[in-house]
Amino acid sequence: MLGIIRVLTHDDRQFVEEHGRLIQREYGIVSLSRCIPDQRKGIYDDASQILAVPKIVALGQALQAEGCSALFLSCAADPGLAELRRAVTIPIISAGSASASVAAMLKRPAAVMGIGADAPLPFKQLLGESVIYARPEGVFNTTDLLTPQGRESALSCADTLYRQGAQVIAFSCTGFSTIALADSIRQHLGKIAIDAVSAAGLFISQLAPR
Amino acid sequence: MLGIIRVLTHDDRQFVEEHGRLIQREYGIVSLSRCIPDQRKGIYDDASQILAVPKIVALGQALQAEGCSALFLSCAADPGLAELRRAVTIPIISAGSASASVAAMLKRPAAVMGIGADAPLPFKQLLGESVIYARPEGVFNTTDLLTPQGRESALSCADTLYRQGAQVIAFSCTGFSTIALADSIRQHLGKIAIDAVSAAGLFISQLAPR
Repeated sequence: MLGIIRVLTHDDRQFVEEHGRLIQREYGIVSLSRCIPDQRKGIYDDASQILAVPKIVALGQALQAEGCSALFLSCAADPGLAELRRAVTIPIISAGSASASVAAMLKRPAAVMGIGADAPLPFKQLLGESVIYARPEGVFNTTDLLTPQGRESALSCADTLYRQGAQVIAFSCTGFSTIALADSIRQHLGKIAIDAVSAAGLFISQLAPR
Repeated sequence: MLGIIRVLTHDDRQFVEEHGRLIQREYGIVSLSRCIPDQRKGIYDDASQILAVPKIVALGQALQAEGCSALFLSCAADPGLAELRRAVTIPIISAGSASASVAAMLKRPAAVMGIGADAPLPFKQLLGESVIYARPEGVFNTTDLLTPQGRESALSCADTLYRQGAQVIAFSCTGFSTIALADSIRQHLGKIAIDAVSAAGLFISQLAPR
């Protein structure tokens, strides 16, 4: 059983289990998703990240105690990943380093696409401080992506990055997973895009959690 | 410490430790390489594979007992992978499924390149029974790759596959790692190639063996 750590507090089970559903659909892996407590706006700055890290560590330990054989830290910033690795004995895959490391391994011109102001730390560490980064016009949070304009803006942003010479785009936001942007890119642009949830599933699939 | 299982018997330490050196150079991971005993020709047919599986399992158990926190089964056919997973409690990455699963995750037209008669099983399982497969002309074993003609033939084989529509080539032979064929492809053809040893290193890097 894979334990999925969601780094925000949310009451909607459908929403909380969404990354688990994507991983099950693509890799047939069954999971158990849990939220950290009392962070309804998730992690959005240094203070909220500092507050979240001990909760992430405690949740990871609880999931291991409940029998999970691997963990997925579902956030592109890998918050508390090092601390979590010290606190549990099972393998942990995190969305940011999963996505960035696959892009880095391909060793072709890469760009990062997200919804924040800048590429998250694991992308800079694995693809270089000066890695090209873009966010879709008019998209500032995952809800903006769910509108027809949001989807169009995301595809258009990717198209621009490919035209500028990127051969690979790594997603630094799991909101793109929800709207299946990687599929749109493959279908409409015929290019290579690394979905962060799918990249995490790739790693988990090779760990063969039992 | 990563434990590397070589599926043939060889006295030359340099040769035995070569995949470990490649992984250390690319990912900074330190490893310990060991060969299975009494199989100087390695695995080359069903009978030699049946003979090798219990040796692979025993070697994996010994490496875990010596303190390895992850294993790399360095063979594109994943021989005995399921049996080994049942016999040890640490994560195991195998060259064949590592290479094939990265190619599959990209979901673009893929081909497989090796030196055997056909694509090994993990490549058919992950990329489809009918996945396009080719081997370089005049290359029948890894030694053939080490000559200038062998290298030229390998690059030319890749070029043909890309011209036929492949956007991604997954290597099903670790001999291509030795001659750095993926780098040649990137440099001369500007295309995406998945090196099997490098793909294995990618997975190990995210497992963070301690």
